[in-house]
Amino acid sequence: MTDRKMLRVLAGERVDPPPVWIMRQAGRYLPEYRQLRTKAKDFMDFCYTPELATEAVLQPLRRFDLDAAILFSDILVIPDALGHRVWFVEGEGPRLDPLLDRESWTYGDPDQVVARLAPVYETVSRVRAAISDSTTLIGFAGGPWTVATYMIQGEGGDKDRCRRAAYARPADVDALLAVLVEATAQHLAAQVAAGADCLQIFESWSEGLPESLFERVIIRPTQALVARLKALGVTVPVIGFPRGAGALFGRYAQETGVAAVGVDTQTPAAFARREAPAGMALQGNLDPQLLICGGEALDAGVREVLAAFKGSPHIFNLGHGITPQAPPESLARVVELIRRGGD
Amino acid sequence: MTDRKMLRVLAGERVDPPPVWIMRQAGRYLPEYRQLRTKAKDFMDFCYTPELATEAVLQPLRRFDLDAAILFSDILVIPDALGHRVWFVEGEGPRLDPLLDRESWTYGDPDQVVARLAPVYETVSRVRAAISDSTTLIGFAGGPWTVATYMIQGEGGDKDRCRRAAYARPADVDALLAVLVEATAQHLAAQVAAGADCLQIFESWSEGLPESLFERVIIRPTQALVARLKALGVTVPVIGFPRGAGALFGRYAQETGVAAVGVDTQTPAAFARREAPAGMALQGNLDPQLLICGGEALDAGVREVLAAFKGSPHIFNLGHGITPQAPPESLARVVELIRRGGD
Repeated sequence: MTDRKMLRVLAGERVDPPPVWIMRQAGRYLPEYRQLRTKAKDFMDFCYTPELATEAVLQPLRRFDLDAAILFSDILVIPDALGHRVWFVEGEGPRLDPLLDRESWTYGDPDQVVARLAPVYETVSRVRAAISDSTTLIGFAGGPWTVATYMIQGEGGDKDRCRRAAYARPADVDALLAVLVEATAQHLAAQVAAGADCLQIFESWSEGLPESLFERVIIRPTQALVARLKALGVTVPVIGFPRGAGALFGRYAQETGVAAVGVDTQTPAAFARREAPAGMALQGNLDPQLLICGGEALDAGVREVLAAFKGSPHIFNLGHGITPQAPPESLARVVELIRRGGD
Repeated sequence: MTDRKMLRVLAGERVDPPPVWIMRQAGRYLPEYRQLRTKAKDFMDFCYTPELATEAVLQPLRRFDLDAAILFSDILVIPDALGHRVWFVEGEGPRLDPLLDRESWTYGDPDQVVARLAPVYETVSRVRAAISDSTTLIGFAGGPWTVATYMIQGEGGDKDRCRRAAYARPADVDALLAVLVEATAQHLAAQVAAGADCLQIFESWSEGLPESLFERVIIRPTQALVARLKALGVTVPVIGFPRGAGALFGRYAQETGVAAVGVDTQTPAAFARREAPAGMALQGNLDPQLLICGGEALDAGVREVLAAFKGSPHIFNLGHGITPQAPPESLARVVELIRRGGD
């Protein structure tokens, strides 16, 4: 395990140059991914077909010298496995039957999730068997609040209705979060059992919450999730990524129990360093838009990130997922620059 | 002037209970506003008709015991006065002819702005004559970056294209910001000459920027704007509102030269206090969604904000504009609770 550079960093070691992986590295910016995608009847089917999902994971590793593979799946497999059906509207994103339209909120038993998501764990095993011993394999899930927002309003976009639900129907929202914590813990533990080396919790909708609500719907459920993972015997490091947490980044890093924290584009490295516990690994945070620009702006951005996180444990990544418009050559350039220490 | 409570707070005095005004207090949540709106042929015409705009300012003051009136206008009068025509698509928001579609970026002379916006200053004078001596009159403009984003991409929404422009066409973007700084300074100075007691700069799109870009497109232009206002002889206090600045809130408060700073919903009062210069007045930051919820959740939210900002100069406000769905009764309740110190 110790030759997996990313795991050494997650354990608190500074490694130069830093290991690198890219959020959504298996994604639409790759022509071979777009080709592969046509083989599944829909996006959820893609996620649930181990042969296709494994191939999606491996595609970016063939092109780029990356330190980690990440499971190809979706944060919405949890509601789907809870019987809250998920579908994708082409070019718009996921849709669910919104809880807001229902008088009483019900969903399936979290204990059924692992049985229903068996194909996902098979993908994890296949990937582990296919990648090199020095490559870290990341399992993941959405954060409880982020997944809840899709279930509550039935789609992405602005989260005003979810905040209102949290204020006006506190018991319903808290019960939903508790179900998601349990289902997510079991789902993540099963990924580790299948071979994941570490885990990332994507709390992609951490923004816009007053502090008391942030504490209630982000910090406490994440604490419960991390504690439940421990109770389930999971010992691998957990990276929390509270995208948009802003001034509340420090509370997330200090209080949730995660081992490392992802830093979004607008959170300065120095601020993250100051606010996170001493020695905690930080991951991030190049602006994904720079990969579309390329050229001198991209090079300068990579150097800026390398310099900003220098001297403490760092995993290079973007501050948000890579976009479909990014040319693959830009990612090749990023990895090349990192390997050369920015020179 | 000293009986204007809000001005005392802006000068650094703690006043109990705190003065209160509400962003978008003249707005669609008021039935009389929706009625008034029908008298103008379009939204820009509404802004440019002193009789109608004055009435819009006065409507909320008749209903609620507010400490301040704010000019009724729009942040996009600046591009409009620069000859970059603005129109509104019903239910969607403003539209401009996007600079991104043009090979070379040109616009009118900032020196023509004040002449073209004469009706706006007439509104300021009419309002000052109509309101009580104890009511503070706030003039405003959009922050240079926020106005630039609308001009660059032609609409609101996600700002990815604007960030790319800032990276890929730095000279064009910086030249645009410089024009906006000059035009905005002249526009704000004219509002003060017409009777505004203080000014607010709405930097509504401060979010999502890496620190170096935040420094370049938000901090430096705002510094230049505040300095230019001084050079034009403006001595009234300027409130900066960097919505979404997150971890960068402190740099905005410390470095731009503003006299006071607006705090958005997700920025905790204690964080804002710690990051802003000692004694600087803070304004905010109730979640606007609570006004839609009403009831116990609203009362608890108001008490939380009062308690969080207690002990230092505070102007009560929302953390973002009031929404069209908010019942006016909720705002009446907010003001009542504040006047009673939360009891």
